[in-house]
Amino acid sequence: MAEALLVLEDRVQSEWIDYNRHMRDGYFAVVFSSATDALMDHLGMDEAYREATKGTLYTLEMQLRFLREIHEGEAFTVAAQLLDADAKRIHVFLRMQVRETGALVGTCENILLHVDQAAGPASAPFPDDIAARIQVLLGEHKELAFPEAASRPMSLAKKKPASG
Amino acid sequence: MAEALLVLEDRVQSEWIDYNRHMRDGYFAVVFSSATDALMDHLGMDEAYREATKGTLYTLEMQLRFLREIHEGEAFTVAAQLLDADAKRIHVFLRMQVRETGALVGTCENILLHVDQAAGPASAPFPDDIAARIQVLLGEHKELAFPEAASRPMSLAKKKPASG
Repeated sequence: MAEALLVLEDRVQSEWIDYNRHMRDGYFAVVFSSATDALMDHLGMDEAYREATKGTLYTLEMQLRFLREIHEGEAFTVAAQLLDADAKRIHVFLRMQVRETGALVGTCENILLHVDQAAGPASAPFPDDIAARIQVLLGEHKELAFPEAASRPMSLAKKKPASG
Repeated sequence: MAEALLVLEDRVQSEWIDYNRHMRDGYFAVVFSSATDALMDHLGMDEAYREATKGTLYTLEMQLRFLREIHEGEAFTVAAQLLDADAKRIHVFLRMQVRETGALVGTCENILLHVDQAAGPASAPFPDDIAARIQVLLGEHKELAFPEAASRPMSLAKKKPASG
């Protein structure tokens, strides 16, 4: 059975805590950014690839949802689900969960563009071997349910407030 | 004439730079989070308010768009535009710009919920004085154009790739 790819395990660092005594919103994005690096490694766009080809990913958009508080020292995991891809871009959904309970802490939806840093930088198609790896993972993840939270616009009118 | 509220001026720190030799996506969220703290101060939800009332804001959603690269040491500003508000929530749009040129580096759209940390934490209406300040700023900012980038869902199908 298909499942999202586990890309990161870590604990909440003390410097990520804010005056609300929980992990600051901005550091969720830093964690999801590291998780995306691990997904890049999985797809073959690791440090060696980047150095050899000057190919890399630039993030175009990132949408975060904050579902529960997480506190200093708590262990968490991040799993990645590939939602879509084209010749130059991938669309990714990431879930951060409390490691012990699996409770969902937050989600992140990303659109990332393949860029040739030697040529501008300018957008560039994925090389064939990377494109093939993307298609393999996308094929697996197409079996997963499309995340309810993904691809929705933000508005006060359409949302109910969270319970806290 | 109405304009967005300048809430932050800073320079790109060396620890925000990633292997692409530009500011990492996640640290944009950290910067926008600090900018939101400054907006809270402006609206009266500052440290003294938080300590006295146990009222604070929790971020429910955050959507970032990355429009150009920014490098170590570059000076930038962040301005906030209040888009909407209800009894418990505000909807905010933030723009990060190169200080020297005004070039738009990135945007951030947030929905923030007023929370009483002593009661759960649980969502709670803004006190009257804070609600009044929100209405003043919202009245000013209703004169501004609604940001083109705001309140749009994410999809590969509907977007054109950025130029790099």
